[in-house]
Amino acid sequence: MNAPHDPSSVGAVVAQKASFDSPLALRGGATLPSFEIAYETYGELNAARSNAVLVCHALNASHHVAGTYADDPDNVGWWDNLVGPGKPLDTRRFFVVGNNYIGSCFGSTGPASVNPATGRPWGADFPVVTVEDWVAAQARLADHLGIERFAAAIGGSLGAMQALQWTLSYPERIRHSIVIAATPKLTAQNIAFNEVARAAILTDPDFHGGHYYDKGVVPARGLRIARMIGHITYLSNDAMMEKFGRQLRRAALGFDFDIDFEIESYLRYQGDKFSTYFDANTYLRITKALDYYDPAADFGGDLAAALARARAAFLVVSFKSDWRFPPDRSRELVKALLENRRIVSYLELGSPGGHDAFLLDDARYHAALRAYFDNIEL
Amino acid sequence: MNAPHDPSSVGAVVAQKASFDSPLALRGGATLPSFEIAYETYGELNAARSNAVLVCHALNASHHVAGTYADDPDNVGWWDNLVGPGKPLDTRRFFVVGNNYIGSCFGSTGPASVNPATGRPWGADFPVVTVEDWVAAQARLADHLGIERFAAAIGGSLGAMQALQWTLSYPERIRHSIVIAATPKLTAQNIAFNEVARAAILTDPDFHGGHYYDKGVVPARGLRIARMIGHITYLSNDAMMEKFGRQLRRAALGFDFDIDFEIESYLRYQGDKFSTYFDANTYLRITKALDYYDPAADFGGDLAAALARARAAFLVVSFKSDWRFPPDRSRELVKALLENRRIVSYLELGSPGGHDAFLLDDARYHAALRAYFDNIEL
Repeated sequence: MNAPHDPSSVGAVVAQKASFDSPLALRGGATLPSFEIAYETYGELNAARSNAVLVCHALNASHHVAGTYADDPDNVGWWDNLVGPGKPLDTRRFFVVGNNYIGSCFGSTGPASVNPATGRPWGADFPVVTVEDWVAAQARLADHLGIERFAAAIGGSLGAMQALQWTLSYPERIRHSIVIAATPKLTAQNIAFNEVARAAILTDPDFHGGHYYDKGVVPARGLRIARMIGHITYLSNDAMMEKFGRQLRRAALGFDFDIDFEIESYLRYQGDKFSTYFDANTYLRITKALDYYDPAADFGGDLAAALARARAAFLVVSFKSDWRFPPDRSRELVKALLENRRIVSYLELGSPGGHDAFLLDDARYHAALRAYFDNIEL
Repeated sequence: MNAPHDPSSVGAVVAQKASFDSPLALRGGATLPSFEIAYETYGELNAARSNAVLVCHALNASHHVAGTYADDPDNVGWWDNLVGPGKPLDTRRFFVVGNNYIGSCFGSTGPASVNPATGRPWGADFPVVTVEDWVAAQARLADHLGIERFAAAIGGSLGAMQALQWTLSYPERIRHSIVIAATPKLTAQNIAFNEVARAAILTDPDFHGGHYYDKGVVPARGLRIARMIGHITYLSNDAMMEKFGRQLRRAALGFDFDIDFEIESYLRYQGDKFSTYFDANTYLRITKALDYYDPAADFGGDLAAALARARAAFLVVSFKSDWRFPPDRSRELVKALLENRRIVSYLELGSPGGHDAFLLDDARYHAALRAYFDNIEL
């Protein structure tokens, strides 16, 4: 993709970093003495500072939401199909902020960063961070950028949890929350999948209790398994059957333990690739952030009570083929918002893409997002 | 459970072994020069030899279907709720044969057995065995026991594949096939879960390419992960939510990587336990047997054509909460049997137990099995 010549692309972008020297108290009790957030922006903040949209990412994405890099033109942002001039989230109208959450491994402060107290990588000592902590850190970034109030926050999956939490942590600082492929809390099965992924990492002999950075190894075996499990939950059974079926990778069954079926090849490829670039300590923390997120927990499980302080308007989108966070979970959220007389639009789409459908360029999905953004007054 | 005093238990039983010295040619091209099958029997073979029922087991069960052992009274057979005097499969009327399939680790010849060619454990050199091979070996056992024709074969999950395959490999040797929680072939998602489990075992440093028996280690880490993944697929999301929900194991969230939720504790316990008694080489082979089973493959995917040679009558049972082999898969099978004008009874049950529901003592389920067995003429 030669992005600079594509008028619907934001073109070559530059990742930036904001440094924060005042400590951040975390939900788990620990304090980050200082931290950095990697971010990118697309479009221009208007004079009224009323057109900023925060994009929150899920598991393995980053602040690189749209466009490419001048020195890496094939590195296209993960939501480039959504964000750009004339795209549903139109950068001619909105000032879009991509950010990398803390604890990640793509530029913001995380387990691989240097612990100022020791001069060595944090490793296992980096605290467990939560959705609430990410939002608190993003609020610091908003201050840094001179954004008092976001026009909207948007995210899918774990990103959607952040878009939702913004309405609870900073109800006066966000006008619209766009919550896609989300759940207000994980089920036992969701937690179970996360636990298996963690177990694979924690028991990898190369994990060294999380202090592997100076050992010259990474727990690649564990990360590989974690990613393979993840991929199964991101795709629908039907989509997987349509894409791979029982298609063989070799001429006939091999009667050994090499790859027989295309789906095996796909999973191994995804697992291998992931294990070369993702940090295991980050993976552990992200899955805990998912498990822990449950805004109703402090309200005796009453989600409507938990959401009473929200002031934003909401767009909630779910996908019928998403068995990870299926439509029922989104409907729970919609119901609790309606009980609070919030303005809510709800869209349940038939896209076959499973949980990952939120990343895909589906015409009805994108038309709905475009219409919603077009109706946001600046 | 003090089985000898329970009139509905078969009581103390004795495991037996049958040895076969003539070679068994396997579907994959290899040949087992000789082999043993561990088995148990309950009830008496009648004079007409017309009342024998073969019970086929799934992943981690064995020939120990019912009763207990005199020296191990707590070791109750895995389908004891079904098999016994007055139980749905009534041992006062039927001669029930439990058998352990070859390649297993509970008594029949498998990877941990001695390879006669080397005098050392087979290990990685034990061939990949298939459902068809198991049935061929079971036919030898039937010969050994003087059973020309089974009144029925019954099994759940992988056991059901064997009960189905009996009608194809030996159409004249089986009168009824009882196929529970089954599928005529695995989906891409099913294969994907198996592949992740295999990957966890194959990449465990203690696996040593399958030759770990003389190394004094077992790939326990990999087995543990494999079992944890398995358990997620055996339970329904709803059953898991009802049983564990988001219940915490400790007083509050720990913000570390120890156990927070009950579901994590359950999975770790199941994984740890399994890794102490199950053989990794067996696990690898069983998952391949599952992946490979597809009787329609030789008929261009036409399942009805594949089943044309079956002569048995069928009872097919599925469970609505089974997302591993959901009712749709059983309906495919029923449809293909009806196209062949086979006698088929089909039961789709609402039991919440997920895939494992076939093992549970559900009143409607057991009443149906009882009625079916009662109607088998001897």
